[in-house]
Amino acid sequence: MILAVCLNPALDVTYHVGTLRPGHAHRVLSVRERAGGKGSNVAHVLAQLGQKVSLLGFAGGSRGERFRAALGCVEDRLTCIAGETRQSVAVVDDEDVTVLNEPGPAVTPTEWQALLDTFTSALPGARAVVLAGSVPPGAPDDAYARLVRVARAEGLPTVLDTGGPQLLAALAERPTVAAPNHHEASEALGRAVDDPTEASAAAQELSGRSGGAVVVSVGSAGLVAVTPQQRWRVVPPRVLRGNATGAGDALTAALVRGVADGRHLPEVLADAVALSGAAVVAPVAGEVDLATYDELRALARAEED
Amino acid sequence: MILAVCLNPALDVTYHVGTLRPGHAHRVLSVRERAGGKGSNVAHVLAQLGQKVSLLGFAGGSRGERFRAALGCVEDRLTCIAGETRQSVAVVDDEDVTVLNEPGPAVTPTEWQALLDTFTSALPGARAVVLAGSVPPGAPDDAYARLVRVARAEGLPTVLDTGGPQLLAALAERPTVAAPNHHEASEALGRAVDDPTEASAAAQELSGRSGGAVVVSVGSAGLVAVTPQQRWRVVPPRVLRGNATGAGDALTAALVRGVADGRHLPEVLADAVALSGAAVVAPVAGEVDLATYDELRALARAEED
Repeated sequence: MILAVCLNPALDVTYHVGTLRPGHAHRVLSVRERAGGKGSNVAHVLAQLGQKVSLLGFAGGSRGERFRAALGCVEDRLTCIAGETRQSVAVVDDEDVTVLNEPGPAVTPTEWQALLDTFTSALPGARAVVLAGSVPPGAPDDAYARLVRVARAEGLPTVLDTGGPQLLAALAERPTVAAPNHHEASEALGRAVDDPTEASAAAQELSGRSGGAVVVSVGSAGLVAVTPQQRWRVVPPRVLRGNATGAGDALTAALVRGVADGRHLPEVLADAVALSGAAVVAPVAGEVDLATYDELRALARAEED
Repeated sequence: MILAVCLNPALDVTYHVGTLRPGHAHRVLSVRERAGGKGSNVAHVLAQLGQKVSLLGFAGGSRGERFRAALGCVEDRLTCIAGETRQSVAVVDDEDVTVLNEPGPAVTPTEWQALLDTFTSALPGARAVVLAGSVPPGAPDDAYARLVRVARAEGLPTVLDTGGPQLLAALAERPTVAAPNHHEASEALGRAVDDPTEASAAAQELSGRSGGAVVVSVGSAGLVAVTPQQRWRVVPPRVLRGNATGAGDALTAALVRGVADGRHLPEVLADAVALSGAAVVAPVAGEVDLATYDELRALARAEED
C-alpha cells in the first residue's frame, strides 16, 4: 500500500460554460464534482494504475462528506475536522480552464495530533509515502518535516511535492525525493525558476540541503533531477494539448510508485514524464489517459545532464 | 405574512478575487455563502424590511441543508427533494461581478404535489403571494399558472416575476401584478425589449393578456407599468453604481409589499424603484441599503405616461 497525504483537500467542482466573460452571468451547461487537492489527485492516479493507496488528510462538514463519497477505490483514512472542507471551482470553456481555489479551513492542534496518530499507525502497512500540496492554516510550520521524519524512522521512502517554507523545513529531514514544480521551487528559493537551466540550479541547491534526489518539473519542458551523484533531464517525447492542471500530480504519482518499487531513478523519471503527459490529455485532474501513457513511456528517456 | 415561492433556489457562493483572468488559477480571498435564487432574495429583502415572510420551494441534499441554515428570519416552508440544491457562484473582482449559475435539480411529480399541498395549506395565513424566478426541470410547464390560480381562488393578490412560457401561461390566470424584467419580457414575446418605449409596448401586450397590472423593469432606466386603465413610468432619481444582481428582486419585494398593503399603484411603483436602487448599493443580492432607500424614496415619483 502507498500512503498519500493530502493536508488541504478540496471538493473540486468543474463547470462547463460556453465562453467565460468577466462581468457577465453564465448558464452552467454541466457540473462535475470530484475529490481534489494535490495529494488526493496523486492517490487517484495511483488507484487508476492499480496501486493500493490510502489517503490521509483533513475532511469536515457537508463538503467533507461529499469528498469522502467521491474517493472510489482510494482507501479513506481521513481525519474528521470541525471546519468545512474547501471547494475549488474549475470553469472550462471553449478556450481555457479558469480555476478558483478557496482557502482551506483551519485545523486545531488536537486535529493535527489526530492526523499524526493516524499517520504513525498506518506506516507499518505502507511501501512508500507521498505528501503533496499546500498545508492548511493551523497546522505546524514544519508539518511536512515532522511527517517525513516519522516515515524515515520507520524506514519508508518518501516523496514530497510542495513549495515554500514547508519544503525548506522538510528538506532537513531528508525526503527520498523532493519534487516541487518550478513555481514551488521559485517560492522556496526566492528567485526565478523558469527554464530547465534555472530548474537544474534550483534542484542542485535543494538537493544539497536534503542529501537526496530533487526533481523540478518545468511544465511542457519536462523535468530536471539532481542527486548527490548525478543530474538528469527528461524532455517530453511530444507536445500535448489539454488540461495541464493535474500533470504535476501524475508526475508525483509516478515518482512514488517507482520509489516504492525500488526502480532505478532514470527509468522512474522517464515514466514520470510519460504519466504526466497522459494526465494532460485526460479531461480532469486525478486521471490519466492510459493509451497516451503507453505511447509516451515507450518514447520517454532520461538523459544524463 | 407574505408567502414567497422560490421553485429553483440556489446556494449562492460569493468569491472575492484580485482580478478574474480567464485561463488562470486564482486564490479566493474571501468566501461568503447565502440562500439565493430570485424568490429567496425577494423573501430576504422583505424580512430586512420587517415583513413576516414564509419561503416555499424545493431544497435537497447537503447544499439544501446549508440553504436552510442560511434562512435567518425567513420562515422555512421548503419541500424536501431527492435532488441536490444547485449552487450559484459569483466571482467579485475589482471591476465586475461574474456569475456562474448551475441548472437546478429535477423534481418528481410527487415532490411537485407536496409543494402544491404546502402552498394550499399556507394560503389562509397569507396577505399576498410572490412567485419569482425560474422553474426547475420536472415541474409542470404551467407551474406558476397553477399556483396563481389557487391563490386567486383564495382571494389573495399575487405578484409574478418570471419570463418565457411560464409567464405567458400564468397571465391567463390573471396575477395581480406580473413583473418581468425586460430580458424576461423579451423572452416571453420573442422580440427585443431594450428601452422604456419597447418595454411599454411589451407591458401593454402582456397586460392585455392578463387583464392586470404589468410592470417591466429596464435596468438603470427604471420601469414602466401598464394597467387596463393607465400607463406609468418611473425614472430612478439618480444613477447608482454597484451590484445590480439583486436589484430586480428588491423591486419585486416592494411590489408585493405594496400590493399586500393595498396601496395605490403609482406610490408602489415609486417605492419599487427606490428599493431597487437601494439593492444596487448593497454588496450582495437579497439585501438593501436602508439609508439609500430612505434617500431615494423621498425623491422617486411615478409619472403618468
